[in-house]
Amino acid sequence: MQGTMLYGPRDVRFEERPDPKIIEPTDAIIKLSAACVCGSDLWPYRGVDPVMQPIPMGHEYVGIVQEVGSEVRNIKPGQFVVGSFFASDNTCEICQSGYQTSCIQRQPGAPTGAQAQYARIPLADGTLVATPDLPPDDLIPSLLSASDVLGTGWFGAAAAAVGPGKTVAVVGDGAVGLLAVLSAKQMGAERIIVMSRHEDRQKLALEFGATDIVTERGDEGAARIKDLTNGFGAHSVIEAVGTQEAMMQSIRSTRPGGHVGFVGVLHDVKIPGGEYFFSHVHLHGGPAPVRHFLPNLIDLIWSRKINPGKVFDLTLPLEQVAEGYRAMDERRAIKALLRP
Amino acid sequence: MQGTMLYGPRDVRFEERPDPKIIEPTDAIIKLSAACVCGSDLWPYRGVDPVMQPIPMGHEYVGIVQEVGSEVRNIKPGQFVVGSFFASDNTCEICQSGYQTSCIQRQPGAPTGAQAQYARIPLADGTLVATPDLPPDDLIPSLLSASDVLGTGWFGAAAAAVGPGKTVAVVGDGAVGLLAVLSAKQMGAERIIVMSRHEDRQKLALEFGATDIVTERGDEGAARIKDLTNGFGAHSVIEAVGTQEAMMQSIRSTRPGGHVGFVGVLHDVKIPGGEYFFSHVHLHGGPAPVRHFLPNLIDLIWSRKINPGKVFDLTLPLEQVAEGYRAMDERRAIKALLRP
Repeated sequence: MQGTMLYGPRDVRFEERPDPKIIEPTDAIIKLSAACVCGSDLWPYRGVDPVMQPIPMGHEYVGIVQEVGSEVRNIKPGQFVVGSFFASDNTCEICQSGYQTSCIQRQPGAPTGAQAQYARIPLADGTLVATPDLPPDDLIPSLLSASDVLGTGWFGAAAAAVGPGKTVAVVGDGAVGLLAVLSAKQMGAERIIVMSRHEDRQKLALEFGATDIVTERGDEGAARIKDLTNGFGAHSVIEAVGTQEAMMQSIRSTRPGGHVGFVGVLHDVKIPGGEYFFSHVHLHGGPAPVRHFLPNLIDLIWSRKINPGKVFDLTLPLEQVAEGYRAMDERRAIKALLRP
Repeated sequence: MQGTMLYGPRDVRFEERPDPKIIEPTDAIIKLSAACVCGSDLWPYRGVDPVMQPIPMGHEYVGIVQEVGSEVRNIKPGQFVVGSFFASDNTCEICQSGYQTSCIQRQPGAPTGAQAQYARIPLADGTLVATPDLPPDDLIPSLLSASDVLGTGWFGAAAAAVGPGKTVAVVGDGAVGLLAVLSAKQMGAERIIVMSRHEDRQKLALEFGATDIVTERGDEGAARIKDLTNGFGAHSVIEAVGTQEAMMQSIRSTRPGGHVGFVGVLHDVKIPGGEYFFSHVHLHGGPAPVRHFLPNLIDLIWSRKINPGKVFDLTLPLEQVAEGYRAMDERRAIKALLRP
């Protein structure tokens, strides 16, 4: 088959790769219906995360099950499935408490890479969720988004304790931030402030339910959020970047007793204890337990109550994956969808 | 009157001080029935927090109201009252949400110092809670503990989301840690692991409801907590120290999806983002909003359901306050009660 490898900074190659095979009896092989490039793929692409050896890329996926291992009970060939970027057994105590991305059997969700024609998915029964039927083509982008970027935005909003009547601020206007806006709207937030400087992203944020736009960043951004909230700060702030500036902006934008939900992968961030102590802010986040939210998210998409697939503003044939990385790196695209 | 001043590291003086007077119309003057030395008083006493000028000491207090300002409506002379280390209006949006120590009018609870014969309490109506009647003498230590150390342990347990069926670990066996044990027991915790190396403190912890004792510290302590919890970690961990080691020990002792409640004043602590991201641990804490818990705590004490006053294992006449500091500094006492 053909798949995507990252050889080093900005060196993405679509090349011949071994066909994935069942290794463990709990594995499944899927044929990708769509894949995409993740904001987190840009960390190694830009050389921020070192690339020590060529790595298979892609961890967001939807597709048709081709084959399952001998111990797979519920997932069956022919089903259309959505999975998560971490595989999980969905039965251990940690999974059952809703933290599948910390499953005691946690492992990469698509170790052979999902920006490819086929992928091996470990722990198929725990990891994959089948849709009610084969989906119509126009739902595929939204179902794909549920695999990571929507699930991550949703977890950010849940971790920030978004709920009816609350004022929410979203730090970061990438695909995760935009889908955090959509999630906050679904959870009944009264007011949703998105922090964005890009007109196309502002537009999509408003479409997803944002009520206010703040263009300032850092401490100026935090001050602006306080201005908009009687000096108190927002009840819930979703951090969807992963830098020191974004984390401090998030903490400083939150009222005492409020919640920061962080889903940007934290890079070189150190939270200063003294300031944090007096902030009275709840912190929660990490790798989103997408599997926990998948049944509900598939339901919302299947019934066309939400249309998160709109974050894909560039669609490319899979073999042009390198252009997808370039477009996202240069911010010409919010998120690139790849069709095999 | 006479009161306590800290002139520099280990230089505590009990000396003649001006009688506190009503300054704002919302003030009250109380005659102290008892005062005490706080673990946090040891930070400047030991020179960890610099002492730039002589400072009046003491922020935990119970006493009889002597006089109130012209705008005080509910607190009346003759009442026995318990207050908090921060004064608060108890009416602003932040107070009403339960975070009185981040009140928009927040100020020191006893700016003239409470290790004294008399003290001025700002925002008396918001800050002070009167007991149903003058208390019997044997309840005074417990009522005094509610002013800070019990309220702080209670907030630690609440911030760590302690509840029925949960396994709780307490990092720190000072008075706050011990009362966090008592609080966790009251909140229905199934198992309470206290981390302590001191026999007298272990004994009191067991009396307050601890079920297990761990003597290891740091990463060894965290490993021991995992051993005791099927490798998962505790559901709730209360950090009652305030150092980098104690905070990391707390995060590392908590299961994914679990909660750390931190109430030790964080000194030179930096929480590393990368590790914290993958821990999936909720963090919450800060200066305990004691005022929020006071009515309930006074109730529990008044009805003799709890006896938190047991943390005072040394009682001294107020004028021997310096010996109270010495005894706590040298760990000869858990907590020193001062009787004027």
